[in-house]
Amino acid sequence: VIEAIRRLAVRGAPLIGVAAAYGLAIEIARAPTVAHARAAAERLRAARPTAVNLAHAVDRVLEAALAVPLGQLAAASLAEAQALHADETAASRAMATAGADWLSSGSGGPIRRVLTHCNTGALAAPGEGTALGVVCELHRRGELERVLATESRPLLQGARLTVWELVRHGIPHELIVDSAAAGLLAGGAVDAVIVGCDRVAANGDVANKVGTLSLALAARHAGVPFVVVGPTTTIDLACPSGAEIRIEERDADEVRFARGRRLTLPDTACRNPAFDVTPAELVSALVTEAGLRVPVGR
Amino acid sequence: VIEAIRRLAVRGAPLIGVAAAYGLAIEIARAPTVAHARAAAERLRAARPTAVNLAHAVDRVLEAALAVPLGQLAAASLAEAQALHADETAASRAMATAGADWLSSGSGGPIRRVLTHCNTGALAAPGEGTALGVVCELHRRGELERVLATESRPLLQGARLTVWELVRHGIPHELIVDSAAAGLLAGGAVDAVIVGCDRVAANGDVANKVGTLSLALAARHAGVPFVVVGPTTTIDLACPSGAEIRIEERDADEVRFARGRRLTLPDTACRNPAFDVTPAELVSALVTEAGLRVPVGR
Repeated sequence: VIEAIRRLAVRGAPLIGVAAAYGLAIEIARAPTVAHARAAAERLRAARPTAVNLAHAVDRVLEAALAVPLGQLAAASLAEAQALHADETAASRAMATAGADWLSSGSGGPIRRVLTHCNTGALAAPGEGTALGVVCELHRRGELERVLATESRPLLQGARLTVWELVRHGIPHELIVDSAAAGLLAGGAVDAVIVGCDRVAANGDVANKVGTLSLALAARHAGVPFVVVGPTTTIDLACPSGAEIRIEERDADEVRFARGRRLTLPDTACRNPAFDVTPAELVSALVTEAGLRVPVGR
Repeated sequence: VIEAIRRLAVRGAPLIGVAAAYGLAIEIARAPTVAHARAAAERLRAARPTAVNLAHAVDRVLEAALAVPLGQLAAASLAEAQALHADETAASRAMATAGADWLSSGSGGPIRRVLTHCNTGALAAPGEGTALGVVCELHRRGELERVLATESRPLLQGARLTVWELVRHGIPHELIVDSAAAGLLAGGAVDAVIVGCDRVAANGDVANKVGTLSLALAARHAGVPFVVVGPTTTIDLACPSGAEIRIEERDADEVRFARGRRLTLPDTACRNPAFDVTPAELVSALVTEAGLRVPVGR
């Protein structure tokens, strides 16, 4: 499970949490001792540094296991992983409704053309996903005209995964390179930008897939809402602000290559931050399963 | 020549101008009549819509040809193309000096780490180029620590061309995906952003490679200078503002593929604007061979 999380076979903050919960339950079933449970939890927690759902999920299963007599460790941890899975699935449904409600009526204008980043659908979260769950709900309500999907370099989750999900849902869409978003937004081609999140600090700063900050700045420049969708498990109250969020830097080969094809000279030095931090003041609405947080004055 | 310009075998606004000037001279040598010269000029002008240097260069050679007796058409147009080439080469040198001078002393702080976009070097303009010419001059002065180069999707001019030029010049550099720029800028990794331009409107709005607007917004957010470098031939006084600049939309396959490798489902619909427009108020300095334009109050 750790390896699957590291190489992004399992990805998307909520789905990483669910996978890690089951991973810990599996490991406890293999060797149902407190010491082993603690050690396995620690290793799982370190699989990826930015997504806070991972630590939340591991802690929740570990706590449930440690609260029962030794003979029930395995059963208790599996039951807790299943409960977490069910909670996250219900959260996806609640976020979709809350987000679509706000975009339909609370955001100040009709939202027919949305732009989304990376992949935040069923391949990233239980149910229909976070940001893409809201998009699906708008589509079911007949309010959606078209989705612009960013390709999301370096790993192309938009081009590979989001496009595939949009085709399955029958939602009209167009793919763009990441850097085309700002010009299209400024030209009036988009009514709202809607993204997921990997960690939200206590002050509302949002760590999410690299490129999110660019989209937030472009949305502000264009005067359209910038909406962040994520379960409350993504909120890290122990983290005061975005400045304290550790940004994972991944392998340079992700930049040097696209789907196995080399794009630059061999051994070119690269920076490859996987995430960036969007300040809370650029977020028009944070949509969770417990409702919305809309900054005062917006 | 038209075909080479269309498929970007010749690219970069100043180099497109020089190539088109020689292209017209060649065509006039083949059939030295006024009617043929006018027809060839019209076809060359339409090769790409956004770069204004193309029209300037073609008009300059055509005017020179039409100003001489019929027997001297071919000689006069070749001489004018050579003069334009020499002028653009001298302009590159002058821009490099003016840009480096301003960044060294006029911009308010030491500029050791610059971020640049697309390719603006010797593969885009006569001499050492426009923005990359300034970078080379900073390097010669010993002031440059490192260049961050964006890969510049969809056609990867940064990954393929700029990295190659930086290696040749021995300038330390790192490659990033386009969407990583904003986070790195916000994190303090860059002292200035420096880009070329394809057309500057009379009010100072800048059309340049798609992604430039994102970088300008990110530079403003980070509080670092955003510098645009281009010869005066790039300024289109007949164009009042960026709103009047026609943005070329190129083939969807440029988005669907990277260096021949398909990135998404076949036949995925794409938007592929090749340029975007950065409003003048986001430009800290416009560097030309005739000096700088620095907006009042910045």
